[in-house]
Amino acid sequence: MPVGTQGTVKAVPQDVLESLGAEIILANTYHLYLRPGHEAIRRMGGLHRLMSWPRALLTDSGGFQVFSLSALRKVTDDGVRFRSHLDGSSHFFTPEHAIDVQIALGADIAMSFDECTEYPATRARAEESLRLTMAWARRSLDRFRAHLSRAPWADATGCGMQCFGIVQGGMYRDLRRQCAERLVEMDFDGYAIGGLSVGEPRELTLEMIAEVLPLLRADKPRYVMGVGYPEEIEQYARMGVDMMDCVLPTRAARHGLLFTSEGRLNIKNKQFAEDQGPADAACDCPVCRRYTRAYLRHLMQAGEALAATLNTIHNLAFYLGIMRRVRTEMDKAGNGE
Amino acid sequence: MPVGTQGTVKAVPQDVLESLGAEIILANTYHLYLRPGHEAIRRMGGLHRLMSWPRALLTDSGGFQVFSLSALRKVTDDGVRFRSHLDGSSHFFTPEHAIDVQIALGADIAMSFDECTEYPATRARAEESLRLTMAWARRSLDRFRAHLSRAPWADATGCGMQCFGIVQGGMYRDLRRQCAERLVEMDFDGYAIGGLSVGEPRELTLEMIAEVLPLLRADKPRYVMGVGYPEEIEQYARMGVDMMDCVLPTRAARHGLLFTSEGRLNIKNKQFAEDQGPADAACDCPVCRRYTRAYLRHLMQAGEALAATLNTIHNLAFYLGIMRRVRTEMDKAGNGE
Repeated sequence: MPVGTQGTVKAVPQDVLESLGAEIILANTYHLYLRPGHEAIRRMGGLHRLMSWPRALLTDSGGFQVFSLSALRKVTDDGVRFRSHLDGSSHFFTPEHAIDVQIALGADIAMSFDECTEYPATRARAEESLRLTMAWARRSLDRFRAHLSRAPWADATGCGMQCFGIVQGGMYRDLRRQCAERLVEMDFDGYAIGGLSVGEPRELTLEMIAEVLPLLRADKPRYVMGVGYPEEIEQYARMGVDMMDCVLPTRAARHGLLFTSEGRLNIKNKQFAEDQGPADAACDCPVCRRYTRAYLRHLMQAGEALAATLNTIHNLAFYLGIMRRVRTEMDKAGNGE
Repeated sequence: MPVGTQGTVKAVPQDVLESLGAEIILANTYHLYLRPGHEAIRRMGGLHRLMSWPRALLTDSGGFQVFSLSALRKVTDDGVRFRSHLDGSSHFFTPEHAIDVQIALGADIAMSFDECTEYPATRARAEESLRLTMAWARRSLDRFRAHLSRAPWADATGCGMQCFGIVQGGMYRDLRRQCAERLVEMDFDGYAIGGLSVGEPRELTLEMIAEVLPLLRADKPRYVMGVGYPEEIEQYARMGVDMMDCVLPTRAARHGLLFTSEGRLNIKNKQFAEDQGPADAACDCPVCRRYTRAYLRHLMQAGEALAATLNTIHNLAFYLGIMRRVRTEMDKAGNGE
C-alpha cells in the first residue's frame, strides 16, 4: 500500500497511482484529524471524495503518530492526551474516538487503537503495553460494531467497512502469541502485526512475523505494518502476508534513492550524470519508459519538483511489481504448475 | 509557451504537457549552461533528448538571466563577464558564445544575445543599450548562419533550427522603431519584442507593442517576451502576437494563485475549505475534471508537493486555452464568418 499520509501519496497524482495498479492506499488518521479535520472531511463526503480516490483506503488508528510525532503525550487506560505537532493544541484520543474519526474519514479498513511498544522494552513494559492494546482492541471493535449495527448507511462509505486488530507484544514471542490468539477470538475482519521495524534487527522482525502469522486466520487479510525494503516485502509476502505499507519507497524517492532489479541506486551520484539508460532496464513503468538516469539526476541536482514525482512513480511501480510477481508465482505454485 | 527553466516545466511531467497541447516550451540557456552544462547536454544528444520532449524548444539567449540573476557582471562591447548565482564561478558570454550554447542545447529556436534595458532608463542609457543590442544581434545572426552553413547535420537537431532577433529600445518609440527596422533588414527567422514587463505601467507595454508590431513581418513569428496576465495574453494575441512566454501561470500556481474564467482566486483562502466545485467550472482540464477546490486548498495548507503539480496543470491549461480560443476566433473572423 502506497502511503498517502495527508490524503495524497506525496508528489503523485491519483490517475498515475491508478495506472500503476495501486488498489489501496493508506492514509494517516492523526494527520487528517488535525488538518483538515475529520468533521470537515465527513461533511465533504469522506476522504475518497475529497481526494478523488475511488479505490480502497485504509486508515491507521492514529496511535503510531500520536506516539511518534506529538509532544507531551499522557497515556491512561482511557486513552492518550497529546499536543498537536502543528499548533500545540491539546487533544484526547480514546479507542472509541479513533474509530469515530476513521468512520468520519470513510475508511474502507479502520485499524483498532493500539500502543506501539517501543524497542527495546523490558518484559514488564511490554506486558503492560500489551494489556493496554488488548483492552483498546476490545473497545475499538465494540465501537466499530455499534456503528455498523446502528447506521451502516449513515457514514460516507455506507456498508462494507472493515476493522482490523493489531498484534503487539514487543519482541516477546509468547506475548505476541497471546495477543494474536485473543484478537482472533474477538473476530476482527483482518489482522495486522504492528510494533515491528521500530529499530530491532531484521532477524527479530522475521521471527515475530513467523511466530504470529500461523495463528492468524489465512482466510482473512494479514497485514504487516511499516515494512520494508524490497527484499523484506518479497520475503513476507511469500510467508503469506497479504498487505504491507511503508513510507520507504516514497520517502527514499524524494531523497534520490531508487529501487531497481539490480539493487538500490542513489540517482544523485556523479556516475549517472550522462547515463542514458533508464532507472531500471527491467522496469516498464512510465518513468523508465521515458526518462534517463541522467535526466533524473539533473532534476535532483537542480532541486526540481519533478524529481520527487518521477522517482516516486518508479519506486511505487517497483514495489507494486514485487507483489504482483510474488502473487503470480504463488498462485502458480498453489495450482501445482 | 510554458517556461521550463531548467529543462522541466516545474512540477509537471512531460506527458501531461503533451496532453495539455503544449506545442513548444521555453528553456533557459543561462541555467542549463551552468547546470548540467551545455557540453554535457550536447554529448547526450541535446535537450530534447535529455528531457524527453519531442516537441519544439525555444531557448532564450541567457542575457536576461545574466543581468537579473548573476552577480558582479561587467558589460563591454565584446560581451558580459558574470559570476554564477550557483557557485560564484566566473563566466564570459559573447553573442557568439550565446549562440554556440544554444546550438549545443539543440534548440529549435535560438534567440540573439541582447541587453534587456532596465526601467526606467534615460534616453542616453537606452540609446547606448540599444547600440549594444543591435551590434550583438548582427554578431549572433552571423554566428548562427555560419553554423548552419558549416554543418547543419552536426548539431543535435540537424537542420530546421531558427534564430530570432530581439527588439529593445526601452520605452522610446523611435528607438523601438529603429531597432525593429534594422532587425528586419537583417532578416531573422522571427522577431521578439524584449525589455517589456520590467516594471513599466501596462499602458506603456501596450504602446511599445503597438508601435513595433506593424514593423515586423507578419509572415514570420512575432514573439513578446515575458508577458503576462491572461487578459494581456489575449489582448496581444488579438493584436497579432504569435508567441509569448511567462513564468506567471507556473510560478503563481506554486503559490496557490489560480487563473479561472471568473478571475483569479487564491486557493489558500479559507472560503474554499469545503468548496466542492472545481477550480474553474468552465475548464475541462484534468485537474478541474477530477479535483475540488477543497482538495487543492488542503494540499496547499498541508504543504504537499501535489499542490504545485495540480495548480500548475490547471493554470497552463487555462493559458493554452486562451491562445486556442483567440486563434479559433481570429481564424473565423479572417474567413469572413
